[in-house]
Amino acid sequence: MYIPESVEINEVVLRDGIQNDKKIVPTDDKVRLVHDLAACGIRRMEISSFVNKKLVPQMADAEELWERIERKKDVIYSALILSEKGLDRAIRCRVPHVSFFVSASETHSIKNSNKTVEEAMKEALRLIGKARDAGMGVRAGVMNTFGCAYDGKVPVSAVLKHVRAFMEREPDEIGLADTTGMANPRQSAELLKLVKDVTGDTPLSVHFHNTRDLGLANVWAAINEGVTIFDSSLGGLGGCPFIPGAKGNIATEDFLHMMHEMDILTGVDLNRFIDVSLGFEKVMGQTFPAFVTHLQKAACGC
Amino acid sequence: MYIPESVEINEVVLRDGIQNDKKIVPTDDKVRLVHDLAACGIRRMEISSFVNKKLVPQMADAEELWERIERKKDVIYSALILSEKGLDRAIRCRVPHVSFFVSASETHSIKNSNKTVEEAMKEALRLIGKARDAGMGVRAGVMNTFGCAYDGKVPVSAVLKHVRAFMEREPDEIGLADTTGMANPRQSAELLKLVKDVTGDTPLSVHFHNTRDLGLANVWAAINEGVTIFDSSLGGLGGCPFIPGAKGNIATEDFLHMMHEMDILTGVDLNRFIDVSLGFEKVMGQTFPAFVTHLQKAACGC
Repeated sequence: MYIPESVEINEVVLRDGIQNDKKIVPTDDKVRLVHDLAACGIRRMEISSFVNKKLVPQMADAEELWERIERKKDVIYSALILSEKGLDRAIRCRVPHVSFFVSASETHSIKNSNKTVEEAMKEALRLIGKARDAGMGVRAGVMNTFGCAYDGKVPVSAVLKHVRAFMEREPDEIGLADTTGMANPRQSAELLKLVKDVTGDTPLSVHFHNTRDLGLANVWAAINEGVTIFDSSLGGLGGCPFIPGAKGNIATEDFLHMMHEMDILTGVDLNRFIDVSLGFEKVMGQTFPAFVTHLQKAACGC
Repeated sequence: MYIPESVEINEVVLRDGIQNDKKIVPTDDKVRLVHDLAACGIRRMEISSFVNKKLVPQMADAEELWERIERKKDVIYSALILSEKGLDRAIRCRVPHVSFFVSASETHSIKNSNKTVEEAMKEALRLIGKARDAGMGVRAGVMNTFGCAYDGKVPVSAVLKHVRAFMEREPDEIGLADTTGMANPRQSAELLKLVKDVTGDTPLSVHFHNTRDLGLANVWAAINEGVTIFDSSLGGLGGCPFIPGAKGNIATEDFLHMMHEMDILTGVDLNRFIDVSLGFEKVMGQTFPAFVTHLQKAACGC
């Protein structure tokens, strides 16, 4: 059992969390949320992608958002990049850190990006070089690492092939995303052991979904394999728009609670974070799936 | 990482799952559920307690239920015992297996049973002897093992003291219950190592709640410590009636899904179990908190 002293959270609510939500969040509320998250102690956050605003209307205000946020020196603000056009927009916005993800599943790659895996990887490697030339920090990651809704099981060899290709470009970090929420903790532990052999000293981050209630079990497995960087989303927002009622990303407040109970430092004030989450529930007009948000201050006689 | 070939489920929906629900389940539906669960492959289930029907009206039909169920030879049917009067009723019903639980928290013990921990333990040990004399299988367990809503942290020494006292009566099994859903996987792993030193070859079972979304993370920690007997509740029913919206026990279908994905055998047909769960949702007039119930047959394009 390996227990780190501290872990790092990459808060993704403003990108993965809300990207598919029908409620378009006013830019004012997004700016406020970015500032509130930093005030809670969040030191890294992905706040937009740069995509076609007709396809993802929630991200249409990316330029305005990047212009209006007050950038704190000790916070890493990041964006997800899906195309060269998106990268160019990010460069114009002086985005300091970007993520690139390539699917490990052929069917998903074609449906998601209209590129084969090989084409998508070639393009990603070229864009990673361009981003580095622009002075950006880079995370290179694998989508559908733990399974694909179309193809089912994803071969470990496909994941390792991606990681090896990325490593040649010397990214700041390798990311593994459980895009479909299909990971289980045995698989997470076994795969992470193999990936670590390839990544060596390059930091590894993981992005788990909680679609089948295995998000925090996978976190525990990853913690034990030495992973210390975790994507999570305020309220547990996000997830798959094609499954009614499906839960989304692991919830930042549940993750924080778990870490603090295990005496692992996060640098984040949980109670303050919960207040931010409750405030954002009002903006979104919904109750979020996170567990501890509504429990924390409740008295319980059980 | 330790992975067992198989695990055993103790299905508790008919006791812990529904005991505090306002909807009183007709005995006909309870009988049908007992039979349906056995038909799915469930080989152990707790189907009632024997308590004051004014205090727990859901359990008022315990005698009729035990009379009406068809007992399969390869299924263990069990009841929770809270008093000598309850034990005498169980003996008259020819209940073959019983559980006794004593709280590790002084405040909870007094509020829950109107006895100090010492008084409750003395009584439990006497009743365990009586149950064994009546030829019953016995599980002796600790409540509030991982934390108390009143007293907060529960000392490990209090848990170990209970386990040692129980072991002198040679129960068939020792159980550890996370009554309040306060366990975390680090704590589960650390405590289980210590408890195993006391229990030796006597089987250990765990009963986790999912109040803070850590149920299956605790399961993964317990699996790795060699535990192979798990309480779970169809649909994730149960939990604390004093926290609005609090999730209950770990959901049997989510637990089954997790095990099967990790190639651990349960002997239970998950798809058939989900059909039973969906049928029981109609009886209860509610959607259960379990995650995979409504996902299993859904197509997902994420």
